[in-house]
Amino acid sequence: MPLPAALLDTLRDIFRDDALSVAEAERLAYAYDNSRLSASPDAVVFPTEHAQAGALVRACREHHVPLVARGRGSNTTGATVPVAGGVVASFERMNRILRIDTDNRLAVVEPGVLNGDLQQALEPHGFFWPPDPSSAPWCSIGGNLACNSAGPRTVKYGSPRENTLGLRAVAGTGEGFRCGTYTSKGATGYDLTRLLIGSEGTLALITEATLKLTPKPSAVRTLRATYTDVGAAARAVARIMAQPVTPCALEFIDDVALKLARDHAPDAGVPVAGALLMIEVDGEPDALPASAEAVAQAARGDGLLELRVAETAAETKALWSARKALSPAQRKLSPHKINEDVVVPVSRLPELVDGVKRLAAKHALPIVSFGHAGNGNLHVNLLPRDDAERERAHAALAELFALVIALDGTLSGEHGIGIAKREFMPLALSGETLGLMRGIKAAFDPDGILNPGKLLP
Amino acid sequence: MPLPAALLDTLRDIFRDDALSVAEAERLAYAYDNSRLSASPDAVVFPTEHAQAGALVRACREHHVPLVARGRGSNTTGATVPVAGGVVASFERMNRILRIDTDNRLAVVEPGVLNGDLQQALEPHGFFWPPDPSSAPWCSIGGNLACNSAGPRTVKYGSPRENTLGLRAVAGTGEGFRCGTYTSKGATGYDLTRLLIGSEGTLALITEATLKLTPKPSAVRTLRATYTDVGAAARAVARIMAQPVTPCALEFIDDVALKLARDHAPDAGVPVAGALLMIEVDGEPDALPASAEAVAQAARGDGLLELRVAETAAETKALWSARKALSPAQRKLSPHKINEDVVVPVSRLPELVDGVKRLAAKHALPIVSFGHAGNGNLHVNLLPRDDAERERAHAALAELFALVIALDGTLSGEHGIGIAKREFMPLALSGETLGLMRGIKAAFDPDGILNPGKLLP
Repeated sequence: MPLPAALLDTLRDIFRDDALSVAEAERLAYAYDNSRLSASPDAVVFPTEHAQAGALVRACREHHVPLVARGRGSNTTGATVPVAGGVVASFERMNRILRIDTDNRLAVVEPGVLNGDLQQALEPHGFFWPPDPSSAPWCSIGGNLACNSAGPRTVKYGSPRENTLGLRAVAGTGEGFRCGTYTSKGATGYDLTRLLIGSEGTLALITEATLKLTPKPSAVRTLRATYTDVGAAARAVARIMAQPVTPCALEFIDDVALKLARDHAPDAGVPVAGALLMIEVDGEPDALPASAEAVAQAARGDGLLELRVAETAAETKALWSARKALSPAQRKLSPHKINEDVVVPVSRLPELVDGVKRLAAKHALPIVSFGHAGNGNLHVNLLPRDDAERERAHAALAELFALVIALDGTLSGEHGIGIAKREFMPLALSGETLGLMRGIKAAFDPDGILNPGKLLP
Repeated sequence: MPLPAALLDTLRDIFRDDALSVAEAERLAYAYDNSRLSASPDAVVFPTEHAQAGALVRACREHHVPLVARGRGSNTTGATVPVAGGVVASFERMNRILRIDTDNRLAVVEPGVLNGDLQQALEPHGFFWPPDPSSAPWCSIGGNLACNSAGPRTVKYGSPRENTLGLRAVAGTGEGFRCGTYTSKGATGYDLTRLLIGSEGTLALITEATLKLTPKPSAVRTLRATYTDVGAAARAVARIMAQPVTPCALEFIDDVALKLARDHAPDAGVPVAGALLMIEVDGEPDALPASAEAVAQAARGDGLLELRVAETAAETKALWSARKALSPAQRKLSPHKINEDVVVPVSRLPELVDGVKRLAAKHALPIVSFGHAGNGNLHVNLLPRDDAERERAHAALAELFALVIALDGTLSGEHGIGIAKREFMPLALSGETLGLMRGIKAAFDPDGILNPGKLLP
């Protein structure tokens, strides 16, 4: 459906020629994201300043036209697919690092800055921003904030909600506002910063973020532990997290995923085992041997096959490249893979991995589990290879979510809800909780123009 | 104004005889808090279960009667003073620790549990809950959450917003709900948990909290540095926070406060100096010497008088007891002390302490500054001794807030807003930001019965 002519005129006033497109090719390019879902917008705009974002929201609101903010579309839930048409606002050109202020341990950035570019810019200062999704080289900070995207380091350093001090944004009302502080502490009114983080563009467009920086630890040690079976590895994870030294990464890879990684990268030295843990410990060099030993001690137990410390940088790199090859390897096997990221309390991980194995057997379906075990956050990926398997996968999915909720867990640890998990929200949240969320949505976006059809069922 | 008879009947149905009082003595006892402000409620109730809190909110809502939740009233902003009368709900009897689950690094508690009691219960497990206000032995977790109360350890371990996984609560609508997770990570909908934390009882009554626990570091070292003047100490703070080792406490005490502490506790060994820093570093014993040296190196610089490591537990205790004696010592000097907790980016601390000295001289008023310098969070206390000084103190206060905002800081780091700072909120937050906060308030509490007259101007 083409946009109202009056809206298009207003958009032409707000955006220069090369920052507004209604051409089909451009609209198609912004129709999909990494969910592989797709729906064409009626126009694409490329804001480069806060004032434009404000004028854009007000114009869309006046005409009741949907508006979808987009970083780099690397999310897997369809959060940036414009299912109701309207305007996509891609923030890829609003990508300046405005300030790196290590004296105050903060950086001020525009939303289109790539996560990887920020990390590179921080490197010489000895600081980093902890959220590190696998897509870090090509995903944007704005997207990370919208989806509360995390990654392996979250187990020690937290997600975007723990690493953001303040935001500038435009609410669905069209009003620009700031929230949060430039300080590491604040108790001045409601916490709108954390409310926007993880709201998937349904409340406001983020136009600037003040990020909390963390000093880079001076040394890291990587351990690799293999186990006879997934249950033994899951029990080791629970033991590791119950002792005082918190690893800066604690990744789990099951037997199916190990096989995929071996097939995908035969020279990476990926071992044959029932399950593998990659454990990283960081800190000051003097403390590292004791920390690594504390973690190693907890990793030992029934079912351990081998525990080794990566001796060289090359060995560490090989371990991580095997881990990072997992997603592409699965996509190759199953273009229609269903990519979940359920989360349970760490002590319930053994029950979760057992349950996943049972679901795979019951539905005769390849399912791999891997991911951020230190947070109890597993990527349980269903890999249907044909239509029959796709149908069975959907049945298995509903059972997976029911299992996770029964284990005191929740639907998503870091991918968010988008379109993909929206229908399952009532499993995780009561009608009352959802009602309060809808009340917040109405306060920020009374006409429901921001990213309609996402997150809230 | 007595409560409507029908409401009183309903309250009698909800609460047993000894859990409801309309007697004047009891009403007076719950009329005030540590702000020294006072306003009598019409009734006091003592909920002991979630269902009672729900019935209570619905009853008050039906009769449009104000309802003020209260922990132990140790806040300094009047946040629990029932300025509009109505019902005070004291959660002091809802004080069970429901679960300590170190495998999942969490504890589930009722709101009336005292912070100090929780820490004691966690001690044998080797864990702690980081928020540690000076009032820890007698303040409640529910109050800590309502006010986002922090303390010295926040500089390394964060405030309640960084240390709470989930909540159970009753909104002003009367609906009970849960938010957050039992996991250390979650991306399932809007972050209502952080929204309630710091909302000072204006959105919901908290009836249960799932707290994130942190492993207790195995060793601590305390350093004391004295400086010729406050500027030199403030510059040292900025240097300490700009290097990688984060201290677990970094407290600043100015010359006026040091003199008060010496007068109050002559045997505590409080030195004569222009300013003092107390610095604590924690971690594994192997790493501690290197960490302490890194911090000491940063503490050295122009204006350093003496830098010493507390050699014995007794010496450390003496240092902390001098620090903790500051609040009572000031109250003795000035029963009407105005207790502020402004916060600025750490690099602006030298400007803040200089500005405070100028304000004290300009208004001929005793002002002491001390507090959590590692967060840029200073308790700037104005100590008027007579009516003329009280009048000048109010003028000085407005100038202090203007200074803080000009330095990119905000009104409160940890005490919150309550009644005391409500009129100053428009200095810190724009009309748009306040408007969005009002929209959230209306969604949670459409009839405005929860803690009216607080936080939002």
